Amino acid sequence: MIIVLKPGTPPHVTQELLDRIAESGLKPLHLPGAERVVLGALGDERVLADLQLDGHPMVESVKPILAPYKLVSREAQPEDSVVRIGNAAIGGGAFAVIAGPCAVESYEQTLASARAAKDAGASAIRAGAFKPRTSPYDFRGHGAEALQILRSVGDELGLPVVTEVMDASDLDLVVEKADALQVGARNMQNFTLLRAIGQTRKPVLLKRGMSAKIDELLLAAEYLLAGGNREVVLVERGIRTFETAMRNTLDLNAVPYIKQRTHLPVVVDPSHGTGIRDLVTPMALAAAACGADGLLIEVHENPAVALSDGAQSLYPDQFAQLMAQLRPVVSAVGRQLAC
Amino acid sequence: MIIVLKPGTPPHVTQELLDRIAESGLKPLHLPGAERVVLGALGDERVLADLQLDGHPMVESVKPILAPYKLVSREAQPEDSVVRIGNAAIGGGAFAVIAGPCAVESYEQTLASARAAKDAGASAIRAGAFKPRTSPYDFRGHGAEALQILRSVGDELGLPVVTEVMDASDLDLVVEKADALQVGARNMQNFTLLRAIGQTRKPVLLKRGMSAKIDELLLAAEYLLAGGNREVVLVERGIRTFETAMRNTLDLNAVPYIKQRTHLPVVVDPSHGTGIRDLVTPMALAAAACGADGLLIEVHENPAVALSDGAQSLYPDQFAQLMAQLRPVVSAVGRQLAC
Amino acid sequence: MIIVLKPGTPPHVTQELLDRIAESGLKPLHLPGAERVVLGALGDERVLADLQLDGHPMVESVKPILAPYKLVSREAQPEDSVVRIGNAAIGGGAFAVIAGPCAVESYEQTLASARAAKDAGASAIRAGAFKPRTSPYDFRGHGAEALQILRSVGDELGLPVVTEVMDASDLDLVVEKADALQVGARNMQNFTLLRAIGQTRKPVLLKRGMSAKIDELLLAAEYLLAGGNREVVLVERGIRTFETAMRNTLDLNAVPYIKQRTHLPVVVDPSHGTGIRDLVTPMALAAAACGADGLLIEVHENPAVALSDGAQSLYPDQFAQLMAQLRPVVSAVGRQLAC
Amino acid sequence: MIIVLKPGTPPHVTQELLDRIAESGLKPLHLPGAERVVLGALGDERVLADLQLDGHPMVESVKPILAPYKLVSREAQPEDSVVRIGNAAIGGGAFAVIAGPCAVESYEQTLASARAAKDAGASAIRAGAFKPRTSPYDFRGHGAEALQILRSVGDELGLPVVTEVMDASDLDLVVEKADALQVGARNMQNFTLLRAIGQTRKPVLLKRGMSAKIDELLLAAEYLLAGGNREVVLVERGIRTFETAMRNTLDLNAVPYIKQRTHLPVVVDPSHGTGIRDLVTPMALAAAACGADGLLIEVHENPAVALSDGAQSLYPDQFAQLMAQLRPVVSAVGRQLAC
Repeated sequence: MIIVLKPGTPPHVTQELLDRIAESGLKPLHLPGAERVVLGALGDERVLADLQLDGHPMVESVKPILAPYKLVSREAQPEDSVVRIGNAAIGGGAFAVIAGPCAVESYEQTLASARAAKDAGASAIRAGAFKPRTSPYDFRGHGAEALQILRSVGDELGLPVVTEVMDASDLDLVVEKADALQVGARNMQNFTLLRAIGQTRKPVLLKRGMSAKIDELLLAAEYLLAGGNREVVLVERGIRTFETAMRNTLDLNAVPYIKQRTHLPVVVDPSHGTGIRDLVTPMALAAAACGADGLLIEVHENPAVALSDGAQSLYPDQFAQLMAQLRPVVSAVGRQLAC
Repeated sequence: MIIVLKPGTPPHVTQELLDRIAESGLKPLHLPGAERVVLGALGDERVLADLQLDGHPMVESVKPILAPYKLVSREAQPEDSVVRIGNAAIGGGAFAVIAGPCAVESYEQTLASARAAKDAGASAIRAGAFKPRTSPYDFRGHGAEALQILRSVGDELGLPVVTEVMDASDLDLVVEKADALQVGARNMQNFTLLRAIGQTRKPVLLKRGMSAKIDELLLAAEYLLAGGNREVVLVERGIRTFETAMRNTLDLNAVPYIKQRTHLPVVVDPSHGTGIRDLVTPMALAAAACGADGLLIEVHENPAVALSDGAQSLYPDQFAQLMAQLRPVVSAVGRQLAC
Repeated sequence: MIIVLKPGTPPHVTQELLDRIAESGLKPLHLPGAERVVLGALGDERVLADLQLDGHPMVESVKPILAPYKLVSREAQPEDSVVRIGNAAIGGGAFAVIAGPCAVESYEQTLASARAAKDAGASAIRAGAFKPRTSPYDFRGHGAEALQILRSVGDELGLPVVTEVMDASDLDLVVEKADALQVGARNMQNFTLLRAIGQTRKPVLLKRGMSAKIDELLLAAEYLLAGGNREVVLVERGIRTFETAMRNTLDLNAVPYIKQRTHLPVVVDPSHGTGIRDLVTPMALAAAACGADGLLIEVHENPAVALSDGAQSLYPDQFAQLMAQLRPVVSAVGRQLAC
Repeated sequence: MIIVLKPGTPPHVTQELLDRIAESGLKPLHLPGAERVVLGALGDERVLADLQLDGHPMVESVKPILAPYKLVSREAQPEDSVVRIGNAAIGGGAFAVIAGPCAVESYEQTLASARAAKDAGASAIRAGAFKPRTSPYDFRGHGAEALQILRSVGDELGLPVVTEVMDASDLDLVVEKADALQVGARNMQNFTLLRAIGQTRKPVLLKRGMSAKIDELLLAAEYLLAGGNREVVLVERGIRTFETAMRNTLDLNAVPYIKQRTHLPVVVDPSHGTGIRDLVTPMALAAAACGADGLLIEVHENPAVALSDGAQSLYPDQFAQLMAQLRPVVSAVGRQLAC
């Protein structure tokens, strides 16, 4: 950690700061320059966070040298993690497609949508029982009843099911019914929920918050691993930028960047990432090309009457076409579609 | 609501959409133009959300005419709401300053910081018991014990206390000890928490999420009012932008914009909004000048050793100076400091 | 165009606005709703810009129905444009790779870098003679001398050359030496330059500004086509967002979105788009997968001593590897590498 | 400057980098830590830019210690600069209001608008002769004729005039007619223009680009001072963020931040900064409260028929009211209105 002092810092303050660094167990360094005095603190600087040196009035800036996360890093585990959701493996060479409707609206709609997903080659089913909605007047999902429908559909089709858990108080219920949990973008920093999920051993898809820096996503995952749950899949699902042409700006740069830093698998959600049906397929192909380990895709038997996210949901035949286009791209980058 | 159709939409699809509008109880309009067919839906378009017309493959875009919120709007209540926290009134001409340390670290530190705030003219005390932290390795607050300390300090000084509630499961505890609740920026769209707070009658300070549009903040407040809790104060605390010079970009434009649209009071948090001690006072003055109803300010007896947010906390004498500079500005815009 | 009036607009003002719409040659519509009066203006609303209705104090908002650009749109020309730079074709099924060093530093460095690009399969050479630099103290290119070097290298290798023109006053010189012009991101809205280039018939690569919405990029291209120059290639090169992990956020979503709206070819610059050498190859593959017509890649014979952009420049062997990985992906999406 | 090396950097590479630092005239430092080797370079690191150390494959990151600008900094000149435009002084305690219509539409409109501005207390007149417009189909100003009108109006009213120069080729003309130049947001990094203006001694208002970091604005000003022109006023006029409620997000945080770092005066443009007439006055008051040295305000004799920017232009009586509200705020922060 590098600590830059303000011009005119008196020597006794410099000494005081060096002493605080030494007391914390790190090795202090004194680097007097022409225009600024710079201090260094060598060692595991993550313990230095407690020192809160940036609160000192003579400290101009503090520049960390090391990444703030540990357990999720490639330095902690060089080889790829593989996360299993039922029979579907994510990471380590296989490419998995998880598909289904935005929300469980009824048994018939869920089964028809899931069956279309399965027929085209999806390896797991996704659908929401609890829906986070910006307005209190919007459809918010059928809750426990929807969970049971999703479980039944998964059993009938023989596919694992993934669904969002919105609050720690619903966790037991969702853990009982689902094969994997999803933490939504708005909950990426719901630390109560993260700590509760960290205590389970259920696989979890952790979505990047819409204004979360990549380091913050990795620190959210660190909460889960620090709790003992290593079955974590990261999800890039679009960030909020100035561009209004799309609902979000899917940030594919995050995929290779994250893969270089962490051993956890990364999947991409081009449905939420763009919010536009016609962009889902090209961005799905791009995700596969840049190294993602899988996709999350919204498919609905009839998006024109969907209760939520219809504008970004694929029709069954569009999804089948996506899968047909995906196969050669996945193969071109040396991977194979899980099935 | 205006619905723009794609070029080449066949007449029977246009008719189908007009029928769906009529069935929903709104008055449909058919506006054939030179290059596009446009449909209109007159009436309370918020019921139209259920139609999800944007999921239809021939719909190019849907443009709402009305704001998506109701109860928080000036149209629902033209006159300003006044929210009372203990003896402190927020809104309606008075200007309130709520100040205190970022976190309750100990009884002594909380009392000393709060006393400094009171001596300089603060009308309420703020301090955190539960701290949302980006990293699992950071100090996360002393929880229930801290709540009791804060209550004791409030009672000793005769000032109301405000503190953050991070999760619905902590709500009863916080309601018991605090005079007002705070919902943090990361929880602005924690809908489980919003619904739970909506069931209480405790005043609540609702912070804008770091990537929340103003309309989304107002919809989050709508959750509270829809639940029956009308004691809501909105807080502008900075948004995330490309600018890295500050921790956040305090968006003061939101203050007059929100005040024109809603009857709820708005306070500004320049401590989190900038993250830089030297910017707190000028931005506090600016907040008062542009019509805010109050301030949330971090003051610590000794920021150089604070366990969190030291870089943005004022020293007691800096806070006293802020208050001295604030008085003439508040007066210049025709208001008076609450005390 | 839809014009929403403020509540309480008196009838004579409504009539005045309807009259102004009619006088402009459009068909006015009056749509009185329950909470708002809405006006419509049917016809080519681009002429309506002159009316500036949003300046009227009783106008709440103006919502355009049509895209603001014409000549660049798919509606004006449904089939793909193909732009030829020397022998290299961009658009219409072929996939072109334009590569070379950030700047012309010397004849030897340019030739060595360009030869490496050619040997690996690049179809054109790029290198800067005039460099826009944020700081006045940075290397700003060798100007006219560099242009001559670039021309000589192109002739020696038999490849067309592309270089940036920074100001209208340099245009004649660059037109004389280069096979195609590049307009940099900072100049996307340098309207004097755009108008001057519109008067030439030289192919031009127009880079998206770092905070330009896609519609603004298309309007900048509209300047060129309106001037008579139809040889325009659009370049996605990353936008500025809150994410600081990369130099920019390469916005690949723009590729399929733009291709649906315009007939112009689109190429992607993952070197500037990410600013990180290790991300260039995966993002180049992703660009090909989502439908781009080509790539702009920085290759330097020795990036470790490059005078600019070394951090994002590929070593020759890395570029060769990129090309090897690119071929199967380009083929998987049904295209072929130009050569 | 701090250079962090990648794990596993071999000793001979470390030595090579230390040698390059030494050769550049700086003092190299070697700081081997537990997980990373860190190098330091002490001295004027701005010369180190030439080294481009971040291009080296074993360099993980380069962290500058010093600000990249010199001449504009408080360290180069601690006391405030005062810039004179005609009789109007900007900076150093006085608060100046520059007002007028967006564009010179006609002599009558310019005179009426300017007279309204003067009557209410403006100290200089602003109006555009050359207008940068996003679309080629929009009104782009009356050019040379408009310059002459503006000069005549200024002479008639005895007030200095400010107008935008869009291109270096227009500079002589604008210098001849105007008392101060304005560089628009889109031209903040038009380095050809900046260098040309740096050669004049005309006062210049330099607007922050819509996605420019503050450091980039200061570097653009550094171009002007490095050229010899020290009569520079910085203008905060709003940045582009995700928030769409306003045209831009006026970033008042920049005002105190900039004032702490540079001796140059800073004025605020709440008209472009918000794009909404009703927000101009509250944000003007806020600008004064947080330490700005003046304002740029759009006033039009009749905004309802303005050819550009009508939605953000004040009516004459609104501007008079703004000035009446401004006086006590300016006074409250210990300044006085220039007149």
